[in-house]
Amino acid sequence: MKKLSVKLRHTLHFDFMISKELDFAIRDIADFPKPGIIFKDITPILKDAKLCTAVIDEFVKQLEGIEIDVVAGIESRGFLFGLMLANRLQIPFVPIRKKGKLPFTTVEEPCELEYGSAILELHEDAIIPGQRVLIHDDLLATGGTVSAATRLVQKLDGVVAGYAFVISLDFLNANDKLKQVSQNIISLVSYK
Amino acid sequence: MKKLSVKLRHTLHFDFMISKELDFAIRDIADFPKPGIIFKDITPILKDAKLCTAVIDEFVKQLEGIEIDVVAGIESRGFLFGLMLANRLQIPFVPIRKKGKLPFTTVEEPCELEYGSAILELHEDAIIPGQRVLIHDDLLATGGTVSAATRLVQKLDGVVAGYAFVISLDFLNANDKLKQVSQNIISLVSYK
Repeated sequence: MKKLSVKLRHTLHFDFMISKELDFAIRDIADFPKPGIIFKDITPILKDAKLCTAVIDEFVKQLEGIEIDVVAGIESRGFLFGLMLANRLQIPFVPIRKKGKLPFTTVEEPCELEYGSAILELHEDAIIPGQRVLIHDDLLATGGTVSAATRLVQKLDGVVAGYAFVISLDFLNANDKLKQVSQNIISLVSYK
Repeated sequence: MKKLSVKLRHTLHFDFMISKELDFAIRDIADFPKPGIIFKDITPILKDAKLCTAVIDEFVKQLEGIEIDVVAGIESRGFLFGLMLANRLQIPFVPIRKKGKLPFTTVEEPCELEYGSAILELHEDAIIPGQRVLIHDDLLATGGTVSAATRLVQKLDGVVAGYAFVISLDFLNANDKLKQVSQNIISLVSYK
């Protein structure tokens, strides 16, 4: 009993630490990309190799028990930790990109972005029907991009096994929308 | 003497194998993004976790003896192996992006692309003067992007320690230009 309690405290401590460390590293940029927006700049995280390792460690820990066959990362910042995570799990990585960037035959979905709209694409051979896909991006904002990514995975008869973000802006309430697809929503640092 | 010869043969064998494996995985897409171009699609590499690990292993092996402080990866596909390589070396990763994407104060450089032109940016705090920077992209074509990346690093008084590409299109002769900056040019699969 004592052992368990120590272990739990250690786990909680670590979760708290990574969240705090990430929050400390992330740089707020006012009025980017447009007036009134405070942009979360992750480049200081990328400069800290130990923190990058901790991000992957924490993703892996929180994904324990969730069956995943593929990591799908959303262009461009979702490529960063996306491939690293897939590699750690030793599973395929598939890129979701803006229209016109993927060279092979694709499926496409329109999406509402925080600052505009776009069309996202996924190679039609990216996912085998039935494969369980983890959708990854660096940041969850309004969820427009992630919802389009969800539809792309489903179009190829993949199953969305969960979502993993470094950051989530919880005050934009995208979580509720995603929970209808999967309860497995991981974000390492949340802003309320 | 016998031991050395076995080791050398093993090394050559491995170099040859990774090059061959990559060539086998890479998918040629005709007339993308425009008529007459044969595009090298790396997405099948990304789907093969063991091959991705081998890419990083081989980069690390070929970089042995070269002092590097920072990996700079060029948007978007340079983000994929770029962060993974920096993480394996446990050194900072800095993203080079198209104009308007990086949120903090930047330096910028125009560049000639294979299919048009653009402006690339780098955060002004990405590199400490004197730091030795490895520039990474997935593919070396005409070298326009990589030359702009070189100028960005030099603008911040960084030293270009070398270049690492998964693929190089040697028939476009970008190597000669890059050799004037650094002799350390690594590409895992070359097309003559």
